[in-house]
Amino acid sequence: MAEALIRQRVADWTKAFRAKDIDRVMSLYAPDIVSFDLEPPLRYAGSASKRRAWRELFAAYSGPIGYEVRELSVTVHGELAFAHSLNQVSGTLTSGRISTLWLRWTACFRYIDDTWMVVHDHVSVPADLAHGKAVVNLTP
Amino acid sequence: MAEALIRQRVADWTKAFRAKDIDRVMSLYAPDIVSFDLEPPLRYAGSASKRRAWRELFAAYSGPIGYEVRELSVTVHGELAFAHSLNQVSGTLTSGRISTLWLRWTACFRYIDDTWMVVHDHVSVPADLAHGKAVVNLTP
Repeated sequence: MAEALIRQRVADWTKAFRAKDIDRVMSLYAPDIVSFDLEPPLRYAGSASKRRAWRELFAAYSGPIGYEVRELSVTVHGELAFAHSLNQVSGTLTSGRISTLWLRWTACFRYIDDTWMVVHDHVSVPADLAHGKAVVNLTP
Repeated sequence: MAEALIRQRVADWTKAFRAKDIDRVMSLYAPDIVSFDLEPPLRYAGSASKRRAWRELFAAYSGPIGYEVRELSVTVHGELAFAHSLNQVSGTLTSGRISTLWLRWTACFRYIDDTWMVVHDHVSVPADLAHGKAVVNLTP
């Protein structure tokens, strides 16, 4: 069943992320992924850019990284699917500061060569535009 | 053709937005939409919450609002689709400040009762986490 396959993909990805296993992390993404990522730029395309973004994030944490996926919703029809969830990233930054952050994650999948691949993702925290702030203290 | 229908939906929505026509703006959304919106909270569900969010945004601008959709990508298969683009919102805020903002927009559609409806959307600007800032000065 397609939804179960996608949920398994997300679960596997989460484990790979916690292990900072960049190759397994990257196995979720299509080569031509278009990403609206948590930090600038506005958007980037291609798995090489995605790999660089993950390397930088992994390097920002001094030890292991925690990753939890909550409220995962998956909608599938034929060879297309989309998923969204609230994800918590936690760990100790290289500065010594302990960071816990809830972010919003949307992923659009296509079934390519017998595998569900993310062709577009969007990751963010809300913005407080009146004060120019990223809102990083919200919890589900 | 489904992709053309969705592009027309987005074009119609853009015109409705510029006219601050809340009912036509709302006609894009499924009643049970789950939204990861530009400003807090992390997420909300239901078209009543979406309507409230748009009313608040419209009220924040003293005059007409500009809205441009760029780099619109639409992927369709059967009764599912997803779209993403970079959208520019511009206008004069009630404070008198002129605001121009590029945001990232992802929308997931289902074909419900012969109409393409947005069941999930995600709107954001990137975050500068090191400085706690919303990054609002980027251009495509």
